[in-house]
Amino acid sequence: MMTKTVAELLSQDATLQDVTIKGWVRTFRANRFIALNDGSTINNIQCVLDFENFEEATLKRITTGAAIRVTGELVESQGKGQSVEIQVKTLEILGDSDPETYPIQPKKHSFEFLRENAHLRTRTNTFSAVMRLRSSLSFAVHKYFNDNGFYHMHTPIITGSDAEGAGEMFRVSALDPKKPPLNEDGTINYKEDFFGKETNLTVSGQLEAETYAMSLGKVYTFGPTFRAENSNTSRHLAEFWMIEPEVAFMDLAGNMDLAEDFMKSVLSYVLENNKEDLEFLEKRLLDEEKTKPQNERSEMSLIEKIKFVVDNNFKRVSYTEAIDILRNSKPNKKKKFNYIIKEWGADLQSEHERFLVEKHFKCPVILFDYPANIKAFYMRLNEDGKTVRAMDILFPGIGEMVGGSQREERLEVLKEKMKALDIPEEELWWYLDLRKYGTAVHSGFGLGFERLVMFTTGMGNIRDVIPYPRTPQNAEF
Amino acid sequence: MMTKTVAELLSQDATLQDVTIKGWVRTFRANRFIALNDGSTINNIQCVLDFENFEEATLKRITTGAAIRVTGELVESQGKGQSVEIQVKTLEILGDSDPETYPIQPKKHSFEFLRENAHLRTRTNTFSAVMRLRSSLSFAVHKYFNDNGFYHMHTPIITGSDAEGAGEMFRVSALDPKKPPLNEDGTINYKEDFFGKETNLTVSGQLEAETYAMSLGKVYTFGPTFRAENSNTSRHLAEFWMIEPEVAFMDLAGNMDLAEDFMKSVLSYVLENNKEDLEFLEKRLLDEEKTKPQNERSEMSLIEKIKFVVDNNFKRVSYTEAIDILRNSKPNKKKKFNYIIKEWGADLQSEHERFLVEKHFKCPVILFDYPANIKAFYMRLNEDGKTVRAMDILFPGIGEMVGGSQREERLEVLKEKMKALDIPEEELWWYLDLRKYGTAVHSGFGLGFERLVMFTTGMGNIRDVIPYPRTPQNAEF
Repeated sequence: MMTKTVAELLSQDATLQDVTIKGWVRTFRANRFIALNDGSTINNIQCVLDFENFEEATLKRITTGAAIRVTGELVESQGKGQSVEIQVKTLEILGDSDPETYPIQPKKHSFEFLRENAHLRTRTNTFSAVMRLRSSLSFAVHKYFNDNGFYHMHTPIITGSDAEGAGEMFRVSALDPKKPPLNEDGTINYKEDFFGKETNLTVSGQLEAETYAMSLGKVYTFGPTFRAENSNTSRHLAEFWMIEPEVAFMDLAGNMDLAEDFMKSVLSYVLENNKEDLEFLEKRLLDEEKTKPQNERSEMSLIEKIKFVVDNNFKRVSYTEAIDILRNSKPNKKKKFNYIIKEWGADLQSEHERFLVEKHFKCPVILFDYPANIKAFYMRLNEDGKTVRAMDILFPGIGEMVGGSQREERLEVLKEKMKALDIPEEELWWYLDLRKYGTAVHSGFGLGFERLVMFTTGMGNIRDVIPYPRTPQNAEF
Repeated sequence: MMTKTVAELLSQDATLQDVTIKGWVRTFRANRFIALNDGSTINNIQCVLDFENFEEATLKRITTGAAIRVTGELVESQGKGQSVEIQVKTLEILGDSDPETYPIQPKKHSFEFLRENAHLRTRTNTFSAVMRLRSSLSFAVHKYFNDNGFYHMHTPIITGSDAEGAGEMFRVSALDPKKPPLNEDGTINYKEDFFGKETNLTVSGQLEAETYAMSLGKVYTFGPTFRAENSNTSRHLAEFWMIEPEVAFMDLAGNMDLAEDFMKSVLSYVLENNKEDLEFLEKRLLDEEKTKPQNERSEMSLIEKIKFVVDNNFKRVSYTEAIDILRNSKPNKKKKFNYIIKEWGADLQSEHERFLVEKHFKCPVILFDYPANIKAFYMRLNEDGKTVRAMDILFPGIGEMVGGSQREERLEVLKEKMKALDIPEEELWWYLDLRKYGTAVHSGFGLGFERLVMFTTGMGNIRDVIPYPRTPQNAEF
């Protein structure tokens, strides 16, 4: 008599076999029907018992959240909504759950309350579905790159460089914070710190990924990155996971092709492999949107939105075209934007991106060839001398999902750019070496994994798509 | 005319087709034969040119490390060691490589020298093979768990808890290190720090993984972990990647089964998928060992060692049995051990583990049921009251590869243990909740990924199996 998972039992025909199953009670009603879940699927298996065969004391301990072991016969279900159920022969309480104090009651809890109980929130349908999807997306990422000849590379988390320029960094130190060793001029003597220099948490693995692309050809990173920015929004985390492919001999057009193919492939994977979780989350989102005014509701359901991305080409639009569209747009003319677009060179705000994606094109948009001075130093300068081969991919409801570029491969141009931005060459000597020895066109992008999970699950707050979110004033668990 | 990779070209028959290929010159000899590599395989493709068709100036720029683009015809090779070669029609220099200054010459470099040039070392055969294997192992890990119904979980890197107890931690802060805000009593006021409390880099994701196992059933982490320990050895890193599965309703015996099956599956994967890289590294190891005295050489070759692990059962030995074996062993009696084993309760040193694995059993060994007082607080106390359900897996040449345990699922026993070790309950309230609500037997283990890469590649220094090693006084790149 093998122990099976709920997913295994539900996917097979009832053959009157003896089965054993372990899991947690979701509900127990009429002293007869246990809905049992073990995390293997969003669905519960119904365990039916004849209360006359069990002690009153045992029955009382079958409460929401209790861990139990059940043996019985798998039979065709009499009730609706399930094909099979278990007729319970024996039942053992493995771990009690006091109904008076157990935080996860069989009712609707607010997401805020569940964030405070993040260690228990995957015991709800919504969060178990979200985290199964997160796991599935993660595997789809590895599978896509592996199938396409990319090597996975672990770039360092602790970095001695602060030239990556993607944002504010957290300091990492093993010095005594109360009495750090000082230099004669009163500054902190980091030579005595663990690494013999000042170190920070990485904001991006890109520069290191470039070193491997320029020898192994196609590589990607998938690791944690950090921002010490006081952004208390539903779209920002201080610690988040980023996917960064980097490919030698690939230009910006190839980069767009790769990003689009990658996104479509990963989303196709979950459509195929996570149907039940997606259906549950689609229904959840529909219910949530019913409480909103009509004009704030989505035109498409969750699964429709995902399929739309898989089935349609991303619209490719240059920054210059986008500025024209925005300048002539209704909200710009009627001064509904907070930032009115006046001329070429303006940095696009979230409101502009959303207008382009959600109102104008109504599909994912790849913006490219941005003004050089609003983008990072390592991006390839175009022949016009004023734009760089950068691209951002914007998604409906999410905004920027991907940011990438062709990299500046010309040593002299790169050095000039660094000089203009006061980035010391000594700091990035190894990065410059790539341009000294066998340089070539190469490109890559970064994709914030949590944004992808938000899009796929329909969850509106980034804190709800990562197990233990790190945000300003919060590092609980 | 499609651009193909070297791996693609080498794996197909010569069909006199036109091909384009881009890569880096490994060698150029007799003004005629270019060995070209693009990272897609350890093998180079030979590009043959008729120097009379090319400018002298171009020929001079075909130097080791230069990036070039070649078009030509794929033909059957005349020479030995390759089935096909390219007869070059056109050749373009994409990026020069000055032979006077390029650090990676076509000769043997010391690993120490290559560590200082870690941004270029994957341009050598050894390091490209190592990093391709690392990538392959990483994919095999994800594939194994995905195939077996585990969910991948990203546990937090920044942690507010310092109770994990696995080692010294790095502090993470956004405060001004020179003038941190102080409390009235002169201590640092961490309420003003980014997270509103003191935070560190994680040493393990286990405790958080337990929270997900107790709802989703089977989960695993694969993320970076940190130790601020001043261990300057060939087996320690300050930043390394750890794999930690955690499974509900699984006891210690199941844990051993899982670990053994996992290791065998992952190693089988690379035997199947990385044959050429393994053969290269096997030869490298043989050459290296030739310089050693006979008695320090391995009895088995690299691939034999891997196959041996795949094909043989791991020997399962209780700590108590192991102590008996060690106490009666020759090196103990002849006082050859640095630490003489006198009685039950002694902590095993590396020399003892190596004796058991390399001399006595000559196979991977799972030691289990260790004395409680030399193991972590969360391990399940046995009925004897003095041992815990811990296990370590020891590998020949590597030592400890895996450390795991069945977890203490009984609330009162766990609380007592924490009290005895001065771990405040408030610190781990959420961990204790798992024992309050639906507790059950559960187990898991941690595997240091770099140790696995060392074993698989035969590399002797852990700094050579991770792209950019972090060690005391070193956070370069």
